[in-house]
Amino acid sequence: MTSSDRAPALGFTSDNIAGASPEVIEALVAASVGQADPYGADPYTASVERRLSDIFEREVDVLLVPTGTAANALCLSAMTPPWGNIYCHASSHINNDECGAPAFYTNGAKLVTVDGSAAKMDPAKLLEAARSKVGDVHSTQPACASITQATEEGSVYTLAEIEAISDACKAANIRLHMDGSRFANALVSQDCTPAEMTWKAGVHALSLGATKNGVLAAEAIVLFDRTLATELAFRRKRAGHLFSKMRFLAAQIDAYLSNDLWLRNARQANAAASRLTQGLAELDGVEIMGAPTANIVFCRLPEPMIKALLDAGFRFYHDRWGAGVVRFVTAFSTTFEDVDHLLKRARAVSQ
Amino acid sequence: MTSSDRAPALGFTSDNIAGASPEVIEALVAASVGQADPYGADPYTASVERRLSDIFEREVDVLLVPTGTAANALCLSAMTPPWGNIYCHASSHINNDECGAPAFYTNGAKLVTVDGSAAKMDPAKLLEAARSKVGDVHSTQPACASITQATEEGSVYTLAEIEAISDACKAANIRLHMDGSRFANALVSQDCTPAEMTWKAGVHALSLGATKNGVLAAEAIVLFDRTLATELAFRRKRAGHLFSKMRFLAAQIDAYLSNDLWLRNARQANAAASRLTQGLAELDGVEIMGAPTANIVFCRLPEPMIKALLDAGFRFYHDRWGAGVVRFVTAFSTTFEDVDHLLKRARAVSQ
Amino acid sequence: MTSSDRAPALGFTSDNIAGASPEVIEALVAASVGQADPYGADPYTASVERRLSDIFEREVDVLLVPTGTAANALCLSAMTPPWGNIYCHASSHINNDECGAPAFYTNGAKLVTVDGSAAKMDPAKLLEAARSKVGDVHSTQPACASITQATEEGSVYTLAEIEAISDACKAANIRLHMDGSRFANALVSQDCTPAEMTWKAGVHALSLGATKNGVLAAEAIVLFDRTLATELAFRRKRAGHLFSKMRFLAAQIDAYLSNDLWLRNARQANAAASRLTQGLAELDGVEIMGAPTANIVFCRLPEPMIKALLDAGFRFYHDRWGAGVVRFVTAFSTTFEDVDHLLKRARAVSQ
Amino acid sequence: MTSSDRAPALGFTSDNIAGASPEVIEALVAASVGQADPYGADPYTASVERRLSDIFEREVDVLLVPTGTAANALCLSAMTPPWGNIYCHASSHINNDECGAPAFYTNGAKLVTVDGSAAKMDPAKLLEAARSKVGDVHSTQPACASITQATEEGSVYTLAEIEAISDACKAANIRLHMDGSRFANALVSQDCTPAEMTWKAGVHALSLGATKNGVLAAEAIVLFDRTLATELAFRRKRAGHLFSKMRFLAAQIDAYLSNDLWLRNARQANAAASRLTQGLAELDGVEIMGAPTANIVFCRLPEPMIKALLDAGFRFYHDRWGAGVVRFVTAFSTTFEDVDHLLKRARAVSQ
Repeated sequence: MTSSDRAPALGFTSDNIAGASPEVIEALVAASVGQADPYGADPYTASVERRLSDIFEREVDVLLVPTGTAANALCLSAMTPPWGNIYCHASSHINNDECGAPAFYTNGAKLVTVDGSAAKMDPAKLLEAARSKVGDVHSTQPACASITQATEEGSVYTLAEIEAISDACKAANIRLHMDGSRFANALVSQDCTPAEMTWKAGVHALSLGATKNGVLAAEAIVLFDRTLATELAFRRKRAGHLFSKMRFLAAQIDAYLSNDLWLRNARQANAAASRLTQGLAELDGVEIMGAPTANIVFCRLPEPMIKALLDAGFRFYHDRWGAGVVRFVTAFSTTFEDVDHLLKRARAVSQ
Repeated sequence: MTSSDRAPALGFTSDNIAGASPEVIEALVAASVGQADPYGADPYTASVERRLSDIFEREVDVLLVPTGTAANALCLSAMTPPWGNIYCHASSHINNDECGAPAFYTNGAKLVTVDGSAAKMDPAKLLEAARSKVGDVHSTQPACASITQATEEGSVYTLAEIEAISDACKAANIRLHMDGSRFANALVSQDCTPAEMTWKAGVHALSLGATKNGVLAAEAIVLFDRTLATELAFRRKRAGHLFSKMRFLAAQIDAYLSNDLWLRNARQANAAASRLTQGLAELDGVEIMGAPTANIVFCRLPEPMIKALLDAGFRFYHDRWGAGVVRFVTAFSTTFEDVDHLLKRARAVSQ
Repeated sequence: MTSSDRAPALGFTSDNIAGASPEVIEALVAASVGQADPYGADPYTASVERRLSDIFEREVDVLLVPTGTAANALCLSAMTPPWGNIYCHASSHINNDECGAPAFYTNGAKLVTVDGSAAKMDPAKLLEAARSKVGDVHSTQPACASITQATEEGSVYTLAEIEAISDACKAANIRLHMDGSRFANALVSQDCTPAEMTWKAGVHALSLGATKNGVLAAEAIVLFDRTLATELAFRRKRAGHLFSKMRFLAAQIDAYLSNDLWLRNARQANAAASRLTQGLAELDGVEIMGAPTANIVFCRLPEPMIKALLDAGFRFYHDRWGAGVVRFVTAFSTTFEDVDHLLKRARAVSQ
Repeated sequence: MTSSDRAPALGFTSDNIAGASPEVIEALVAASVGQADPYGADPYTASVERRLSDIFEREVDVLLVPTGTAANALCLSAMTPPWGNIYCHASSHINNDECGAPAFYTNGAKLVTVDGSAAKMDPAKLLEAARSKVGDVHSTQPACASITQATEEGSVYTLAEIEAISDACKAANIRLHMDGSRFANALVSQDCTPAEMTWKAGVHALSLGATKNGVLAAEAIVLFDRTLATELAFRRKRAGHLFSKMRFLAAQIDAYLSNDLWLRNARQANAAASRLTQGLAELDGVEIMGAPTANIVFCRLPEPMIKALLDAGFRFYHDRWGAGVVRFVTAFSTTFEDVDHLLKRARAVSQ
């Protein structure tokens, strides 16, 4: 379907309201025929593993799971003992939006929040926290840090920033996890390779998101610290995240990583967000918050504009983060027409 | 694709090696277009809930999850405290094949095995076990029972047998769970309704399987004891089993339950198993074990026959449950041609 | 032994460095003779239960345990599901000093800190926190609040303050726990009864400390919400906190509660702290922090004074909470001579 | 107190109904005076560590805890992942009498029972079990074995038997734990040293009982595999088993291990059991079951004899393990007069 075939999409609440890329659906249809060995012993899973090793320029271990929460919680459970501290930003998904999944999977590890601007942890504060009470039996102990790339505010850690975080982790002798629910959106915004953004910068394990960027439901745990792999195989099964018909997860990710679909989708989402940001910035009474880099835009809109957009059927979160604060999220499926349609309505109120 | 278009399928290891029904795939393709609200607030999920209430002839609560292990472990976690006993047959999936998922989800409940022939718990033994050490603070406490319908041996609890189990549960004041990974296969083998096989017989919660019977990856937790629903919503999210793009789980189940697809698929799998049983029974040196009712056949084959079938490319488990013991599993996708192809090869060795 | 028989005690690090009251030791000696039924079916345990019902002016359920961490974590585990929030002050023992025991016992509940001056939660902030994201499946859920009486800073919640906290709990439909590690010290500082300070003010469960106030090692969980009792009996055993020779815990607590020993001990500790506060306040360069009510004194001392006291063999924590900040803790065994001995040395430096 | 001072003790239900040895009480009284550093930084704890290193003829790590359930569950939690199997005899305390403590502490590990006569695991069956499904992600995995010395039936593993168990563990690459709740009773029944009975035979961690043999409430975790020590320090605190006034646990164990008190106590308990066995064996209608080695006697008594003993005030368990089956347990405090008093009564019925 081309954009001209359809009415403009009105939803900007999240990138999880989008459907799936046609290439992903086609791959699923093709994978649905005939018999295949279960639990990952199928050719699609093997292909995904090869692709990810190619993309990250080294051998990696891969575990496919259906949700980002599963990917994050499983990674973290292998990186901390039950009495460990997991350092994260207060705004992170693991801290706010997973109903305590990290505590469940780790059997009680503590999320310790570390401040920093633009939803990014400050490396100096991370180091200070992770050096506190080490070896003190009365206190939970430093175990790992988790950064979100791109963040919940749409900002992106630069390579230098990831390395600074990683340096703090090394100095404190803890591991580093990356919640890459929007990894592709972050990657295409920076001038670097997937390897540079992860293991070359000191990341031990990555939750590589795909669901928000064009697949139905599939994420990949990518392990650069391969000592975690054996344990995670048992943890995944024990959590009910090992699919018997694994090919259906694998076929999605395989298509997602083929022909740069993941990068193309992310570029479209980012470009739509950028277009939206620029369009809004020109309007009277609109304040763009932060400097959105990926596909999330936080801004302050005049109350009449919010009302007018809602009345026109647009959907987005507002007034959750303060009066007049609006969050728009674009997706791979957001067209420029969709954006322009919203801007047109906003402009009408502005004048 | 009709069966004549393709070479006979050689795999009889499990019903999880089959692909998906075309109707399910078509539903997925249709569901992949456009925006839909996340986390179950989509029309497909609502449709599934309506269908299940219709099928079970009462209001039920429904939680969709991607795997049978997740469905089982979540159900059980809401039916037992951490110090509870879960009574099950030694051969059950929860006891053998889930890497301790029930213990993980319940934070340590104990699987207590109860004997019985044909992989079915003996209700008298269940009652004896569930009345032991009640209130004794040194002992884990009776909490619930879990029966597998159809069992791992292909046998099926009759209505009277389910009611006897349920009577024991009531007498011991514990709840009853049904692992219905092959519920459809069991149902079509009995002359009763879904309601009769479950809540009318005293079942509180059902793991309704679909993955083994024609969908890609989707199962439904069906709650007849609706007091469990609120808790399970949090438990599901916390375990990473709440899909943002829920429509993709829901569209599968919706198609599965439409136009009797689930029953048609199960009838085909059972009929294939029956044909296989009858064909094998006629051969010299073959012993059919038990009285297979659903889509699993255990039998004892002569060693040369096993070897000949393997050499011909057929795949099935053998010698796991004793020398010469073979398990064949058929699926919705197993055609009579597939069965006859295997029988022809077996017959050739037999003569 | 009278105070004149001994050299002044030099330790002010904590009230856990003191020994035990002679009455407690005598009770232990008496309880060590002959046979007694195990696991609480002994006359000492029955006596403790009677005493506590008398003291609290109502029927209560009692579980004896050996440590305050066990008492707190057990109480909390019965008051929150694994996905619950436990609201507490950032300075609380459960948050800082129990190595994650609440998360272990609850299987992952989240400690959510609520600000407030003098180490006491602000009821308005508590209410705001406990009303946030209620029913949102992505977020851990309000479950209970825990207040520390007396606090880690030596301050004490007044009756009015407890009632304000309790009102917030009721408005948010959550339960209220009191960590009474220093309950006696708090009680004797206020003009109220044990009943008024607890259940009459809305407290559901109390960790009644004794170890810090004159026994060897024993604490009592006192349940005003008696629906928690059955569950806690299993949880206590499962955690290894059910003593076979329960009489030894019970004999300690029984002596502790007899003849007002617990109140006399607390009065001595508080009076020693008060004397210390007054003595220090008169010295040049000394700043008393907060308004110590119980047996803990925070103050700022000149560096030379700290050094001189340390050189003289006195022991106390310093420079943990900021440069020059010193914490002194007195105990039931701290005599006025002990205090005067310290003051004398401090005075010498001050002049 | 000498035996002549007192009426004969009538309780034979368990060794946990006895009081404490005078030496232990005296040590407690002495330890109750003055200040001591908390959490194990006291001279009593240091002394215990030295004594245990002497007794076991090597450096060991020691953690004191108040109960046997805590000792066992903590040891096991460091020896198995949550998805591990713990092999034990069906009659073991960890399987029957700890309300699932091992599952709680390990976050879900599975107790897998291994048959064997006289309450002792058969090493061949252990090896078979521990070699099953290794690496199979669907199955919980072999992690450790736990033997009870002496067993719940009063039998004792010989050195050769321990070595056979240990050989099986080594062959299966799993660790070995000894539940030594009655370690002293076992030790004095065999012609060997503590070292020979433990680490020289391949034991990695020992729960060294003391409560049942003369102390109030104290057990020692003794680690021969010292890699477990760091982790266990955090696990102990997190479980609420780290005593602030550790000296009170330590003083008990210190006295217990001094001047061979632990061995003398055990010899008395065993001798009393032996005298009881011999006396009963001479009576008509009495059948001694098994070959009691430590301080537990199982026997079959005529119904009138059971009734007569109960009527005379004697207390013991009967009819739990079959009609007419009686269990007598002696303790360090059981005198020959106590035994003869019971025998006299039994003899009167027998005639």
